[in-house]
Amino acid sequence: MDIVTGGESHGKGLFAILEGLPAGLKLDLAAIDAALGRRQSGYGRGARQKIEQDRAEILSGVRDSVTLGSPLTLAVWNRDYAAWEGVMAPEGCDVSRRTLTKVRPGHADLAGMRKYGQSDARNVLERASARETAVRVAAGEICRQLLAALGVKIAGYVCAVGSIADTRRYSFEELAAREETLGMMDGALAAEARAQIDACIQAGDTLGGVAEVRVKGLKSGFGSCMTPSGKLDARLAAAVIGIQAAKGVEFGMGFAAAVHRGSEVHDEIYPSEQGYLRKTNRAGGIEGGMSNGEEIVLRAAMKPIPTLMHGLHTVDTATGEAAVAAAERSDVCAILAFESILEAAVATELARVVIERLGGDTVAELTERYRRLP
Amino acid sequence: MDIVTGGESHGKGLFAILEGLPAGLKLDLAAIDAALGRRQSGYGRGARQKIEQDRAEILSGVRDSVTLGSPLTLAVWNRDYAAWEGVMAPEGCDVSRRTLTKVRPGHADLAGMRKYGQSDARNVLERASARETAVRVAAGEICRQLLAALGVKIAGYVCAVGSIADTRRYSFEELAAREETLGMMDGALAAEARAQIDACIQAGDTLGGVAEVRVKGLKSGFGSCMTPSGKLDARLAAAVIGIQAAKGVEFGMGFAAAVHRGSEVHDEIYPSEQGYLRKTNRAGGIEGGMSNGEEIVLRAAMKPIPTLMHGLHTVDTATGEAAVAAAERSDVCAILAFESILEAAVATELARVVIERLGGDTVAELTERYRRLP
Amino acid sequence: MDIVTGGESHGKGLFAILEGLPAGLKLDLAAIDAALGRRQSGYGRGARQKIEQDRAEILSGVRDSVTLGSPLTLAVWNRDYAAWEGVMAPEGCDVSRRTLTKVRPGHADLAGMRKYGQSDARNVLERASARETAVRVAAGEICRQLLAALGVKIAGYVCAVGSIADTRRYSFEELAAREETLGMMDGALAAEARAQIDACIQAGDTLGGVAEVRVKGLKSGFGSCMTPSGKLDARLAAAVIGIQAAKGVEFGMGFAAAVHRGSEVHDEIYPSEQGYLRKTNRAGGIEGGMSNGEEIVLRAAMKPIPTLMHGLHTVDTATGEAAVAAAERSDVCAILAFESILEAAVATELARVVIERLGGDTVAELTERYRRLP
Amino acid sequence: MDIVTGGESHGKGLFAILEGLPAGLKLDLAAIDAALGRRQSGYGRGARQKIEQDRAEILSGVRDSVTLGSPLTLAVWNRDYAAWEGVMAPEGCDVSRRTLTKVRPGHADLAGMRKYGQSDARNVLERASARETAVRVAAGEICRQLLAALGVKIAGYVCAVGSIADTRRYSFEELAAREETLGMMDGALAAEARAQIDACIQAGDTLGGVAEVRVKGLKSGFGSCMTPSGKLDARLAAAVIGIQAAKGVEFGMGFAAAVHRGSEVHDEIYPSEQGYLRKTNRAGGIEGGMSNGEEIVLRAAMKPIPTLMHGLHTVDTATGEAAVAAAERSDVCAILAFESILEAAVATELARVVIERLGGDTVAELTERYRRLP
Repeated sequence: MDIVTGGESHGKGLFAILEGLPAGLKLDLAAIDAALGRRQSGYGRGARQKIEQDRAEILSGVRDSVTLGSPLTLAVWNRDYAAWEGVMAPEGCDVSRRTLTKVRPGHADLAGMRKYGQSDARNVLERASARETAVRVAAGEICRQLLAALGVKIAGYVCAVGSIADTRRYSFEELAAREETLGMMDGALAAEARAQIDACIQAGDTLGGVAEVRVKGLKSGFGSCMTPSGKLDARLAAAVIGIQAAKGVEFGMGFAAAVHRGSEVHDEIYPSEQGYLRKTNRAGGIEGGMSNGEEIVLRAAMKPIPTLMHGLHTVDTATGEAAVAAAERSDVCAILAFESILEAAVATELARVVIERLGGDTVAELTERYRRLP
Repeated sequence: MDIVTGGESHGKGLFAILEGLPAGLKLDLAAIDAALGRRQSGYGRGARQKIEQDRAEILSGVRDSVTLGSPLTLAVWNRDYAAWEGVMAPEGCDVSRRTLTKVRPGHADLAGMRKYGQSDARNVLERASARETAVRVAAGEICRQLLAALGVKIAGYVCAVGSIADTRRYSFEELAAREETLGMMDGALAAEARAQIDACIQAGDTLGGVAEVRVKGLKSGFGSCMTPSGKLDARLAAAVIGIQAAKGVEFGMGFAAAVHRGSEVHDEIYPSEQGYLRKTNRAGGIEGGMSNGEEIVLRAAMKPIPTLMHGLHTVDTATGEAAVAAAERSDVCAILAFESILEAAVATELARVVIERLGGDTVAELTERYRRLP
Repeated sequence: MDIVTGGESHGKGLFAILEGLPAGLKLDLAAIDAALGRRQSGYGRGARQKIEQDRAEILSGVRDSVTLGSPLTLAVWNRDYAAWEGVMAPEGCDVSRRTLTKVRPGHADLAGMRKYGQSDARNVLERASARETAVRVAAGEICRQLLAALGVKIAGYVCAVGSIADTRRYSFEELAAREETLGMMDGALAAEARAQIDACIQAGDTLGGVAEVRVKGLKSGFGSCMTPSGKLDARLAAAVIGIQAAKGVEFGMGFAAAVHRGSEVHDEIYPSEQGYLRKTNRAGGIEGGMSNGEEIVLRAAMKPIPTLMHGLHTVDTATGEAAVAAAERSDVCAILAFESILEAAVATELARVVIERLGGDTVAELTERYRRLP
Repeated sequence: MDIVTGGESHGKGLFAILEGLPAGLKLDLAAIDAALGRRQSGYGRGARQKIEQDRAEILSGVRDSVTLGSPLTLAVWNRDYAAWEGVMAPEGCDVSRRTLTKVRPGHADLAGMRKYGQSDARNVLERASARETAVRVAAGEICRQLLAALGVKIAGYVCAVGSIADTRRYSFEELAAREETLGMMDGALAAEARAQIDACIQAGDTLGGVAEVRVKGLKSGFGSCMTPSGKLDARLAAAVIGIQAAKGVEFGMGFAAAVHRGSEVHDEIYPSEQGYLRKTNRAGGIEGGMSNGEEIVLRAAMKPIPTLMHGLHTVDTATGEAAVAAAERSDVCAILAFESILEAAVATELARVVIERLGGDTVAELTERYRRLP
């Protein structure tokens, strides 16, 4: 299975084609829109999220809500395109409007302008924007539904907002039952986090955080111990760092594993009635590049949104003079959105891994083959 | 450019084919062996490293030490194959010898046996072993030499061994001049680290660490802001987590970026005589999925070696009974090896990215095109 | 550069995403619609071609008719979707209407039903239909415009309709100036061909043919002599046989080369003022898997349309009984469409080959690098 | 499953890595050497074939003749490397010896020299040589053995040598029982063909031909009707045209299908006790880009060997003067070798297609999944 996306932030919409989905998957279309809603929610979001209320439209690959095995084309139309058509239309528009030359540190603006020979960062930022993740969240929800057909579930939460970190361990079921306000599990910490966000709004500053995603019900042996690029964690790492603003990813104990001795890091194995038993899951469910049957656990760090109302020092590329970076209306903290994108990215990569191992042209075939795996 | 590898730990050797290298690269063959030597060095290594003294042999793609543009085949022969031939030979051998069924936690053993239908973990561990990285280090050195032809340099160091961490910042030149004992920059800390390793040897335990790699001289615009999978950091993340024992990777400030406000994280831009000036490099040289012209900075966490002399609790898959994990002669701490593999992985992925952007069939073409980049 | 397509024949439309086009290509949007018109024209086409008058809409990747370097999303909307919505809508529809179980020999119907677990061939044929090529023709026209920016041109013609074959040789300029009726170069032969088509209409039968495509202005060295999969002819062969109804492809003399001696097949080389001179081009511009600077020449065979009004013997999969194959309104001869799709397929694959060799993020870079090639 | 190859014609050897083969395939190693022998046989071959008697060595991925699921590395060592070491050694050699500048029409020489910036065609021809196919034949035999485990068999024959063509139809069993002299099925025609070859030897000329390969026992649904690049015939076409000297490929009736009416081309379907029955197989076992359960039938045209003892007109690139092309000792007719390489190419691509559809980590899994296919 492969996925490609297209679309600009203020263009007609965001688009994706998923090639290689099996036939016979009955889609819950409302759940796709619900996922898009989660991506838009969260304390600290800018005004645009309220305008848009994204909805996914399926353009191909599905008939009567069941996949055909043909490429599935998705659209998330930009509701404010009418307002931007004069500036963005492929067919013709006024490119002298809405130019951006006070390039924003932390964004693709400057490197992108050089790379693509542009004098207007608009031509770069429209694509580089995290708006692109809308259609990836929609695609991710489809992949999640495919995984669910095999009994594989995904959940996650926000474990830190700025310096407010939750170090408790939660069960998968607790995460799955999480309520949406900010995506944290602990109400008291969430209140502290909201206060930090408020302080940032006040200061014209921004805030990042850390999110964790877990996968439950995945049998062992997904990924590969035979090739570096086939390792499950290598593939998930690329998917995670492919998310805008991600600056780090770790599996299981992650960086903490580097600090402890081997006897404190590896998950011993015990015989039991139900087969091999682990009392710990410090590996995060991946050993030797393969799932080992335990929960997959990964965490990713999101940097603060690089568009600050306060304005960072920069240069106006049109003049070469010092300037204050452009501050389009933006989010102050989007960690909950990040968390939902992280779930989508994990679901999508996992669906690819699963389809490669199981092959199969129909969901019935995949399900049967999955059931027969050791 | 693509690379594939083959080879088992106690088989005939390790092999790689690099497809898509440009013609006309004059190779320093001695430097390849030197890189293999660095991978084998470091305090805390097991006896095998002394036996082997790896050397790379080029089997194709090079004539009189200059690349032809044809696939470059590499071999790192296993010097102890003669001793293992009776157990490992493809042509015929006694597979009832050297079986391993007391599966080792933290290794591919158990998941691999299930996946590949094996009753002997030997058939899994031989490939899953980090021995595979020998040929990747050789390939990485070739890629490094290609990058050097463009003026792009790579260096790194061990920033932590277990809990002994070096938090100072070093210049690229300091790193490049680093001496080899344990790979740390600070002699006093290295002494502490050696003491920790000694304690582990005593206890039959193992130790991991953290390594940092930097890339200097890379122009802006490598990678992509247009597709998730094209992002430079996403690609490097997969390369890094594809290394055996890597459990986390971060770029620039990495996880620390999640804790600070945007104004403390993003690298402001100033006008200067030489063009755009940054006073900080918290992004680690990557913005919007592209190199921004600053040094690339990434760090990776290595878990402790999962083979402990002390022996972890496990199950003997042959009997289903509790057992102590097999403890083949092994390393206690291999963080310096990890650091050298990390450099190789970064060099290799970067060479791929560079060749994709520049195209080109000869080093002269690449060099000229690189020179002309903005 | 990669291209993926989606869309069903009677669904909302046909869609494509082109990933990896350089920025700065000024598109002639009218020429895209003109290419779509050519695909719909030709003597012997069914009624549907008149209904539709395809037009391409660009959904992303272009601003004010100039490419951005971001993924370019294309749509060719199905004008009769309103009539089919009740049968095809992804959101919900009546799948018991318009079923097809009298599977049509020569189509994907039967193999596709088994593969995708379908009891209604509608769920297969909607995607397998050559309607899919509409969006590939649009994409191909964009690729042709990219190639034109480098001075590379593509033209072709119909060299045979059924048994009416034109064995004369035409210059590239003659082909490029070809008028559209049936796509043949010779009026007298075209009249004979029309008579054959009329006879087929009378008999409820169908007709195929042979089309030739040539590429002029391509410098030498595109493709590769280093890997089988990199060979220019291997890549073009896959692109050509990937077209619905293509049953064969040949380069230069093609199958005739097998009949003659080496001295009659290979293109001797002579010194001249302008460099190396060839007096013949029997190789079709490709030697050793690479363009050699001469015109690329390839021909492809199209089988007759497999939907016959006359009706072929088949089985009704719903009953297992003998039946006459369903005959939806269809074309009798679509060789001119095939020719235009062939040009598009060649343009697209060639653009991929060119971008891989030249790299580059902008058309300016590509043009400059192309100019500097030997 | 992927395969890459390396190696020069007079270098150390030819090498391949097959990544993604399932574990548990018991290899018949002698059969691999037998396949190499067939590639070297045939009337009209040059002296080199007698020197070499190629043998394959497995370097990794196999233990006691059973695949491990790890990358399988193959070597076919060049037996005359000792004689060429001084001219070819990667470690250092005299590149002023055995230069070739009288570039040979029909070879990669001239285009390759320009592309790779070489003044000596030796640096191009060493890789472009069809010697490379030795290791592909070895790999193909391994793939054939994998297919055989599923009950899928491959056979072929030489249907034409120059103008001596055999137009009879043979059963798969007849082909499989074919004897080796020249690869033709009819002794009388083979005698005529030998006479043609003798005449070419006399004249210092060369001869090509046409070979056919068939696949028996492949279930329906391999390949795809959903994407152009996934079509079984498109993939096989690339594999076939990727063979040195191939100038055309056709499936089933191939180019003849373009001449006949639909009613004479498509394979009608009838009900029968055993399911759907076809009385003809003009499609060559592929409809809609998928296998349809009938025999796969394809034919490929081989051009005459471009190295003529007689010598073609050319230019000496060292002087720019007219010259007679270099005539290294070479074959006069290698159509039987071509046929065996064709079988190998088909086996290899088919194994890739099969593994993608079935997934699976072990031969047992593949076999079980194949059995369950409809």
